[in-house]
Amino acid sequence: MKLWGGRFEGNIDPLAMRLNASLAVDQRLCDVDIRGSVAWARALARAGVIAPAEAETLCAGLQKVWAEFNGGAFRYAAGDEDIHTAVERRLGEIAGPVAGKLHTGRSRNDQVATDFRLWLAEAIDVLALRLDHLQGALTAKAEAELETVLPGYTHTQRAQPILFSHWLLSHYWALERDQQRLAQTRARVMTMPLGSAALAGTGFPIDRAALAADLGFESIAPNSVDAVGDRDFAAEFLFDAALAGIHLSRMADTLILYSTAEFGFVEMSDAYSTGSSIMPQKKNPDMLELARGKAGTLLGMLTGLLAVLKGLPSAYDKDLQEDKAPVFAAFDTLDVLLPVLAGTVATMRVNRERMRAAVDASLLATDLADHLVKKGVPFRQAHGLVGRVVRKALEAGVSMDQLSAAQLREVSDQFDDEAVAVLSGASLLAGRTVAGGTGLDSVRAQLAKAREHGAHAPASPDDTHWPARHIDQTHSEDIMHPAS
Amino acid sequence: MKLWGGRFEGNIDPLAMRLNASLAVDQRLCDVDIRGSVAWARALARAGVIAPAEAETLCAGLQKVWAEFNGGAFRYAAGDEDIHTAVERRLGEIAGPVAGKLHTGRSRNDQVATDFRLWLAEAIDVLALRLDHLQGALTAKAEAELETVLPGYTHTQRAQPILFSHWLLSHYWALERDQQRLAQTRARVMTMPLGSAALAGTGFPIDRAALAADLGFESIAPNSVDAVGDRDFAAEFLFDAALAGIHLSRMADTLILYSTAEFGFVEMSDAYSTGSSIMPQKKNPDMLELARGKAGTLLGMLTGLLAVLKGLPSAYDKDLQEDKAPVFAAFDTLDVLLPVLAGTVATMRVNRERMRAAVDASLLATDLADHLVKKGVPFRQAHGLVGRVVRKALEAGVSMDQLSAAQLREVSDQFDDEAVAVLSGASLLAGRTVAGGTGLDSVRAQLAKAREHGAHAPASPDDTHWPARHIDQTHSEDIMHPAS
Amino acid sequence: MKLWGGRFEGNIDPLAMRLNASLAVDQRLCDVDIRGSVAWARALARAGVIAPAEAETLCAGLQKVWAEFNGGAFRYAAGDEDIHTAVERRLGEIAGPVAGKLHTGRSRNDQVATDFRLWLAEAIDVLALRLDHLQGALTAKAEAELETVLPGYTHTQRAQPILFSHWLLSHYWALERDQQRLAQTRARVMTMPLGSAALAGTGFPIDRAALAADLGFESIAPNSVDAVGDRDFAAEFLFDAALAGIHLSRMADTLILYSTAEFGFVEMSDAYSTGSSIMPQKKNPDMLELARGKAGTLLGMLTGLLAVLKGLPSAYDKDLQEDKAPVFAAFDTLDVLLPVLAGTVATMRVNRERMRAAVDASLLATDLADHLVKKGVPFRQAHGLVGRVVRKALEAGVSMDQLSAAQLREVSDQFDDEAVAVLSGASLLAGRTVAGGTGLDSVRAQLAKAREHGAHAPASPDDTHWPARHIDQTHSEDIMHPAS
Amino acid sequence: MKLWGGRFEGNIDPLAMRLNASLAVDQRLCDVDIRGSVAWARALARAGVIAPAEAETLCAGLQKVWAEFNGGAFRYAAGDEDIHTAVERRLGEIAGPVAGKLHTGRSRNDQVATDFRLWLAEAIDVLALRLDHLQGALTAKAEAELETVLPGYTHTQRAQPILFSHWLLSHYWALERDQQRLAQTRARVMTMPLGSAALAGTGFPIDRAALAADLGFESIAPNSVDAVGDRDFAAEFLFDAALAGIHLSRMADTLILYSTAEFGFVEMSDAYSTGSSIMPQKKNPDMLELARGKAGTLLGMLTGLLAVLKGLPSAYDKDLQEDKAPVFAAFDTLDVLLPVLAGTVATMRVNRERMRAAVDASLLATDLADHLVKKGVPFRQAHGLVGRVVRKALEAGVSMDQLSAAQLREVSDQFDDEAVAVLSGASLLAGRTVAGGTGLDSVRAQLAKAREHGAHAPASPDDTHWPARHIDQTHSEDIMHPAS
Repeated sequence: MKLWGGRFEGNIDPLAMRLNASLAVDQRLCDVDIRGSVAWARALARAGVIAPAEAETLCAGLQKVWAEFNGGAFRYAAGDEDIHTAVERRLGEIAGPVAGKLHTGRSRNDQVATDFRLWLAEAIDVLALRLDHLQGALTAKAEAELETVLPGYTHTQRAQPILFSHWLLSHYWALERDQQRLAQTRARVMTMPLGSAALAGTGFPIDRAALAADLGFESIAPNSVDAVGDRDFAAEFLFDAALAGIHLSRMADTLILYSTAEFGFVEMSDAYSTGSSIMPQKKNPDMLELARGKAGTLLGMLTGLLAVLKGLPSAYDKDLQEDKAPVFAAFDTLDVLLPVLAGTVATMRVNRERMRAAVDASLLATDLADHLVKKGVPFRQAHGLVGRVVRKALEAGVSMDQLSAAQLREVSDQFDDEAVAVLSGASLLAGRTVAGGTGLDSVRAQLAKAREHGAHAPASPDDTHWPARHIDQTHSEDIMHPAS
Repeated sequence: MKLWGGRFEGNIDPLAMRLNASLAVDQRLCDVDIRGSVAWARALARAGVIAPAEAETLCAGLQKVWAEFNGGAFRYAAGDEDIHTAVERRLGEIAGPVAGKLHTGRSRNDQVATDFRLWLAEAIDVLALRLDHLQGALTAKAEAELETVLPGYTHTQRAQPILFSHWLLSHYWALERDQQRLAQTRARVMTMPLGSAALAGTGFPIDRAALAADLGFESIAPNSVDAVGDRDFAAEFLFDAALAGIHLSRMADTLILYSTAEFGFVEMSDAYSTGSSIMPQKKNPDMLELARGKAGTLLGMLTGLLAVLKGLPSAYDKDLQEDKAPVFAAFDTLDVLLPVLAGTVATMRVNRERMRAAVDASLLATDLADHLVKKGVPFRQAHGLVGRVVRKALEAGVSMDQLSAAQLREVSDQFDDEAVAVLSGASLLAGRTVAGGTGLDSVRAQLAKAREHGAHAPASPDDTHWPARHIDQTHSEDIMHPAS
Repeated sequence: MKLWGGRFEGNIDPLAMRLNASLAVDQRLCDVDIRGSVAWARALARAGVIAPAEAETLCAGLQKVWAEFNGGAFRYAAGDEDIHTAVERRLGEIAGPVAGKLHTGRSRNDQVATDFRLWLAEAIDVLALRLDHLQGALTAKAEAELETVLPGYTHTQRAQPILFSHWLLSHYWALERDQQRLAQTRARVMTMPLGSAALAGTGFPIDRAALAADLGFESIAPNSVDAVGDRDFAAEFLFDAALAGIHLSRMADTLILYSTAEFGFVEMSDAYSTGSSIMPQKKNPDMLELARGKAGTLLGMLTGLLAVLKGLPSAYDKDLQEDKAPVFAAFDTLDVLLPVLAGTVATMRVNRERMRAAVDASLLATDLADHLVKKGVPFRQAHGLVGRVVRKALEAGVSMDQLSAAQLREVSDQFDDEAVAVLSGASLLAGRTVAGGTGLDSVRAQLAKAREHGAHAPASPDDTHWPARHIDQTHSEDIMHPAS
Repeated sequence: MKLWGGRFEGNIDPLAMRLNASLAVDQRLCDVDIRGSVAWARALARAGVIAPAEAETLCAGLQKVWAEFNGGAFRYAAGDEDIHTAVERRLGEIAGPVAGKLHTGRSRNDQVATDFRLWLAEAIDVLALRLDHLQGALTAKAEAELETVLPGYTHTQRAQPILFSHWLLSHYWALERDQQRLAQTRARVMTMPLGSAALAGTGFPIDRAALAADLGFESIAPNSVDAVGDRDFAAEFLFDAALAGIHLSRMADTLILYSTAEFGFVEMSDAYSTGSSIMPQKKNPDMLELARGKAGTLLGMLTGLLAVLKGLPSAYDKDLQEDKAPVFAAFDTLDVLLPVLAGTVATMRVNRERMRAAVDASLLATDLADHLVKKGVPFRQAHGLVGRVVRKALEAGVSMDQLSAAQLREVSDQFDDEAVAVLSGASLLAGRTVAGGTGLDSVRAQLAKAREHGAHAPASPDDTHWPARHIDQTHSEDIMHPAS
């Protein structure tokens, strides 16, 4: 079945048909397409365009199509070029000629945009939950390793001692920004295009506000030309997804580093590692590498859609059909990646001894300079003096804390016995109590704040492994009993 | 001057110095860098780390550096590797050894992130104004062309009649989403990293909340490791900019089309056109083409920064130095492009006759089908019947409205005299009064709504051509009189 | 079955398994994987690592696996994490313990790179043929429309008259560069990684040159560390594909323009058009829009893979698993798009009258200036004079050729009667006989040159619609009869 | 001065002028623009369009403009919208009215494409030299560290022992592919557009073959429409540059890893390191981080240009003006990055003891399995047995080589005394003598092959630091003495 063709003489070329068809991709919209059609039938009835009984018949028919689809009994026909065509075709088989009234005053242009937005809003809800679980795994681990000290790195070089809990929470906040962005994107997603028809607005007196309320939209698109051609929401989602992917990639890259034999700070559990087909001793952090790699792929999806949109004429162009594949793929990627990383973090073994052992005295150089500052030495000068101490230790081939007070004084008589104590690590982290700093009290406060934001560990394995299928079933109740 | 080096023996290779130096790019941060330093000096004094008199001296010195910079008297020295170094070096020349106290408890890691955010927030404010002016030009033009009819296009094929005001406003709403996104991004930009030092938090008891208030930040970064490595705000801005660019490219592409000899709907004024070095008759819509092209370049800036961030280890890495060039370039692009497009829209000549003449009867095919629907014919059947009418006209080589009632009835006896009237365009657009539709009342309501959102034409040419330099001067008053 | 695990205690998490598994994507390599394994078995035998009889058994077993796969009888097992595992598992079921010898001295790292390269070389061959067919359609159409005149456009504004054949051939040459690039990429693709094992080189005395010859490789990778981590060939292919896509998008965009009601230069056949679900009169050039849109998607695939590769540590990392999906997708896109566009071009109707009618006298302004030049007027001055003629006509509201000789002379007495003749179009295109120009003789020569390059129309529909499946069967004969 | 305007009434808006102007970017083409104009003047004379004496005057004038430009005496005028306009304007001031003849039969469309290609060919030559120097640094270092053993890594986990020379050369070959690609791109760059005029071919009988020979082009563009709109060469160069950048990023990322305190394999010299403004002990591998970061930025440049090109109408559009900035920036990036990395590699200190110490017995697990294979155990079974040995050692908390022969035999009696010897590292690398493997003889052969390809250390510092300016001066001799 084609939804057009009266004015056409020839048949479409088979390969052209294949290029044109979107069913392989958009069949995933079946659930929301049917929900949208149910609401449309009701709206047509409310507007007096069709009779209440006709709306009943259409809704009952759509319910049956939905049941077939969800029960696995739905069969596509040869000419079904997209999911909208397939559903309308099947509805006709079930409900008879009245099915021909469903598409009144509607175009696939506003229909597909409506479907896509409904789908995406639910997909965002799923990802919000997945993010929350990963955030929960990070906070739980941070609590367990609250006082574990390791070197903080900048430029991948040892910089200053920090708490491992602080490091874990640093990734919590990046994900929190992802949550915020997704929530803001969702609000824009939930603007309803339906009623815009092809581009000029429907020719029938549809109450779009009531229709929006019926479908759960938060607002209605204010301009029909914009409504059918706008894919900002898809691009925004892909950006949010790509940036979330980049956050995961940064956490993953650092954990890959920490799990090398040379660092030895963490070890991934067997459940989240794989081996080698040739090297029997290998245990590889594949999940982390995939997280890092998939950030690149997500970036490509974003770039691709933006390039599709660039330079398009106003309103609807067929190029927009390229919008769904990357959005679906980005969702699927994060839908699996996030729980896998939550599991990876939750089960990784932390080697506290290796971490602490890596905190050598040179990491306290800044504390030593700060010590001089507290004695009145301008910081810039203090930095220079400690730099000379560093070089002295390097030249002597010893650790800084092995230099005697006398040796320190060869550099400057500002170095007193307390200076030696600083380098001994006696008061490690003591001074970093500023808000957001790595001092123990600051991190405790930070952890409390994170918990307030609602992150929690998964309630149950089922919860973590929530099947993607769920997102299509959320509203099944509603569909089963179309409005009277 | 280098801010480091005590522990180094050799000198840096000259080419390496050149690669490492960021001054050519980040000198643009001079104003915000000084503002940040003034606030930091005050914060150090508040924390008792330096004496109030020292803070006074530092602030007065910084004020002098600022005046030199803004007066064009500032001179860079050979070793100034970045703007922070240059300012601190010059401050030392002016204020003497106390200058060495300014960097106490601060790292360039938190300093540059702070500077960059302050700069970007102001840049966003400028772009919001620029967007507002273009929105103003669109609404003003929509008002002037409120009742002008032209074909609406989908697939770049004539689809249905719409109002040109409706088309103009369709671009208004896309820009409105850009405004919304930029505002949300700005809130995230205004989170203060200062106080995070290198990555562990400053070692001095700085009151970060007070410091944030002093600088106008809305919140403080909750984790020092995240704070120095987070560049989400820059990526978000580039996304917002790229998507705005895409909106402009779509409007531009359509206007390029409309200004061809073949369409002839609009003509750009000479003020926004250029000619050819070889073809004397040419008048080219270069501004629109540049708008379209620059969308591609903006997209590359976004992609580039995301690729920089992907896979980076936690906290600060030098790779992050690649962040500023694209953000500055994206701002500069839109800063000029938006007012030029505002001018282009405001001054373009609209050829109402050509537009109306292009609305041939075939564009009323949907109205004809809707007419049958109102008589009880299911839409799907009506669509098929009208399709056959279309073919009949094509085969006869006539326009649809040249078919007689009798000829229509050869297709179906459902076609009555009113059907002929529909094709005559008698009630063109009459039915599109749904919210967001192209009916005159709907567009009037839409226009009123747009005006509520605050879009207005530029108050004055000065306003439109607001020099970018302004964004650095906004707070000059404040800097001149550092807090007592 | 897993090819690793002896050192592991726990089982892999099910979601992690799903994330890690690549079978859904790489099953497509089954054919080349088996070919690679057959060659490897032979190489092991040649090196004396396994007995000739063992090699025979392995090859026979692999042949059976291949037959099952190609006959649709192959069944995956639960633990088959990739195609290599699946094949080796099935081989074990068929051939018994000797199957355990196949992977001797080989790693999946070199195996998958080998498979992927073999697959890609054949894919490039298919695309070369597809490109050739489109080039054939362009040259055939150019021949049919050899003398058809239409306006050439720059900035989408009418510029100078050109031949439509010249326009068609302009796209031929872009595709010819794609051919050249693909051929050069193919040569780099055909460098053999096999024998590099995990990264250090195989521990057995394999004759890699003989192995390469057996598999059709043109050279062997000179460094085993590079060999397992190099994905340049995939990135290059994606670049070639993206640039080819961009060429198609430019041709498509222009044809979309030409097929508007306003231009009316061409009309796509019904076989390569679609209609609207709501507007009965619509006939949309969907194939061209999809060509344009898919260029964006292809660009995203390229960007994605490059982002994956950026910053990866040397040698093999799991991130590289992201390499195949975009390459397969890019191939599939062009594999369908190219023949559809060939059909579109071949069947489009050219409206010569509309084209000729659009060549108004203003397009001869350059010829008029050139005419003055030939009389000794410096071109820059001639350009200015003609510009004034253009303005004169605009102001008078007439076409330039409607100006009398007297009116021309009001601008300059350099305008003689011949000038009037120039504007009449009497010698349209006569002067553009420079090599590569649009003069008729030049285009004839160009067409001859294009034909030399080998472009030809598809021999038969079968040829055009060559199923992608073929690329896996090319060497089936060879596999059936493994070397004695 | 504007090169157009006769038909225009109003003046261009100042901001529009700024947006339109390309001088800030394209002034860099001055040298090649003048060379192109000299050749064009000669060609016009050869075609009899201008007199030989006029050509002499033009060439002499152009020579003077060139001298002013190179001597720093050239001054731009307010209306110089691009470098072509600036040069022609200045030529007019010097040579008088005859300057107005230079642009005869030429458009900026073919002129700028010609200039750009000439510039790019020379830029590629410079980069080829820069690449060669880095390759030279790698081979020199490989020679110096020929027998240094370190762990090879896959998945950033220790995999098998390799030679450091082998690792260094792995990057040599990646760069060798860059060389090959650049050379192939260069050949396509050197196709001459000149003579294509605006898009239809010049109206004068120019001998394009002679003109091409004069300018050093290898061929002439076969189609004038394609010639003015083709930017494949720029996109190709950006791809080559981006991929080269990715190669550098991978080398850099690994060296960053190797220079951590934890790995301690290499230490960058002070000449290629920087310090911290706050942490006195820090020495950061900034050059390597910038190499990694700039790969992302280069990727953005490529993406940006491809997005610009996507969907453009045939022939010249103003969007193409976006082509030069990314190409110049990509060249500048590599022009500095490559010599800095050559210096970094040449001067880095290698810690052979740390490298060797990291080769623990577990890296010989594959050799142990291979040992069993040589005794007739199928590899798959051998892999499993060794995997159990690995676990045994892990559980015992000892290194594999600390297991006694008896303990090995608890796993399998296939383990004999030779097995123990294998794990002792007695014959480390002995078996990797396959072509391309890490065995010493293989690496020696590889090094010899690399040297054949011509890589050599920089002849002198001057050579390394070859100023970019040189590329514009190459042909100065030629310009000084225009053809008689």
